[in-house]
Amino acid sequence: MSNGEREREARVLEAVRERREQVNAAVEQDLPPAEPERLYAASRHLIEAGGKRLRPALVLLVAEALGGESDDYYAFPGLDGDEVDVMTAAVGVELIHTFTLAHDDIMDEDDMRRGERAVHREYDLSTAILAGDTLFAKGFDLLTRTGAKPERQLTAIRRLAETCTRICEGQELDVEFEFADQVLPEEYMRMVELKTAVLYGAAAAIPAVLLGADEETVDALYQYGVESGTAFQIHDDVLDLTVPSEELGKRRGSDLLEGKRTIITLHARQHGVAVDELLDDEPAEADIDAAVDRLHAAGSIEYARERAEELTMSSKERLDVLPESETRALLADLADYLIHRRH
Amino acid sequence: MSNGEREREARVLEAVRERREQVNAAVEQDLPPAEPERLYAASRHLIEAGGKRLRPALVLLVAEALGGESDDYYAFPGLDGDEVDVMTAAVGVELIHTFTLAHDDIMDEDDMRRGERAVHREYDLSTAILAGDTLFAKGFDLLTRTGAKPERQLTAIRRLAETCTRICEGQELDVEFEFADQVLPEEYMRMVELKTAVLYGAAAAIPAVLLGADEETVDALYQYGVESGTAFQIHDDVLDLTVPSEELGKRRGSDLLEGKRTIITLHARQHGVAVDELLDDEPAEADIDAAVDRLHAAGSIEYARERAEELTMSSKERLDVLPESETRALLADLADYLIHRRH
Repeated sequence: MSNGEREREARVLEAVRERREQVNAAVEQDLPPAEPERLYAASRHLIEAGGKRLRPALVLLVAEALGGESDDYYAFPGLDGDEVDVMTAAVGVELIHTFTLAHDDIMDEDDMRRGERAVHREYDLSTAILAGDTLFAKGFDLLTRTGAKPERQLTAIRRLAETCTRICEGQELDVEFEFADQVLPEEYMRMVELKTAVLYGAAAAIPAVLLGADEETVDALYQYGVESGTAFQIHDDVLDLTVPSEELGKRRGSDLLEGKRTIITLHARQHGVAVDELLDDEPAEADIDAAVDRLHAAGSIEYARERAEELTMSSKERLDVLPESETRALLADLADYLIHRRH
Repeated sequence: MSNGEREREARVLEAVRERREQVNAAVEQDLPPAEPERLYAASRHLIEAGGKRLRPALVLLVAEALGGESDDYYAFPGLDGDEVDVMTAAVGVELIHTFTLAHDDIMDEDDMRRGERAVHREYDLSTAILAGDTLFAKGFDLLTRTGAKPERQLTAIRRLAETCTRICEGQELDVEFEFADQVLPEEYMRMVELKTAVLYGAAAAIPAVLLGADEETVDALYQYGVESGTAFQIHDDVLDLTVPSEELGKRRGSDLLEGKRTIITLHARQHGVAVDELLDDEPAEADIDAAVDRLHAAGSIEYARERAEELTMSSKERLDVLPESETRALLADLADYLIHRRH
């Protein structure tokens, strides 16, 4: 990494961090503890557990890139002089994201999330389902309270609802892939796009809709979010094999060990690698090195890297619809960061 | 039942039946089979299993009571000359109802619904959660497509979102009551109101919002729905004890046998009846008669009947905000039917 790259990455992280604090304060206001206590505690559980708040940060950054200078997110200047509460939209998007986490952890039987117990483990199955449903309802509720022109709020809500439908479709594909004989890398990318990336797309498109941007701009920003979000997920698969365990925060190769399908293993399988035999039950570090060498030799890690690079490049070009500004540069750097981060 | 009552009941049933067929055709259009096939089949499962479609029928009937004569629900005359697709709103409300059924059956570990296997039994837990989430998203999506004035659509969506939050709160209370030492009849009624009746309220209020009725009318219709919906649920508890098994379609006293809390058992317990000892494991018909006598003696069945009657009376008075019409009379008869039906 060059000094320039390092500086840009530091700037991106600082920009997200600053907005995260404001988002957290807004969530506290919009989703206060309430009755029945247990339901609201469960709904807040994953939010309090942490999280990068990338999606709400994206909502705020896109607003800034469109609406010019302002740090009052609750009364942000729209393109035709009206005031829009983009913070409430940002919180709405984060609640929708949190709803998907609560329900996904049930389906995937995951015990931990954000370093804490998953909602269905900390509470129980019923409460986790209900907490997700509550976050879902609250997310839509907030989207009706942004103060933007009613027809724009309506368009934003429709986009969010469509996005939620796509997310369900993606999660269903993910579940089905567990039982499928063969999944192609392209099918996997489509699943990732539906399950994860469309919400990045919505996070980028919704502020543009609310502030009154034209359709071309909205669509370009949506694509920026979808492409950089897909690249982000692909990069996760690459990280698992290429970053030392101590830096990654979990064992290198754990996807391989757990038999998880990734774009890399799917590509390797498609190219004749016996992926299931790459590692035995208790591999030494040298066995993992050998497995990674085998995946390199099949071109599978490069394949994933190239897909992530292509998507990121394309996503940055989408930003041409925005006026030149520091924030636009930051959005481009954010896309780069998503596929260059080391954990 | 007098001849007049019988005639009114027949008219109500016919009115609901006619609208049910149209609602079913509209659902077929708005929630067609799609990819991934399994997700959409699961989402349609409970809808195809049947159901009375009371809530969408209520949406259509309220529209008719407000908007005058028309049978084109897709372009229904609003109060100030605009055209509103109230059928799409009706379908949206039914999808939200169906989402709550799919998730509730998981939480309550119910195997059957509408004479068919519950979604999580016919498919699996993950698919049932996702099918519910898909119906949730589609319900909101449809509410953005009614063609009403945007600010009215926005208000309707906000009401529906708030209603969904209330439903989650009610379901949480229902789950918590299972483990509570003591639940008062009033607490139970509040739970029923949140879990079930608010969606009747929304079904009555939403068409009024969309067609442009004033706030007083909207609020009165909401109360009409909430009160008659609460009475409907209380009547279910009464039916279980007072209607012979063959007419009820399930064994008389099955709530008592299963140890289910109802407004009747809660009242009885509050008044010193040892409810758990009313029936042993394999009671004869005469034992059930004796248990019912005991509940009558404690005034518990009368208590439930009176609450249902009071709520129904009050709900019918709410209809005074509507202009006099045949449909208004039908809405009053519908409230009566809900607490006089025998199954």
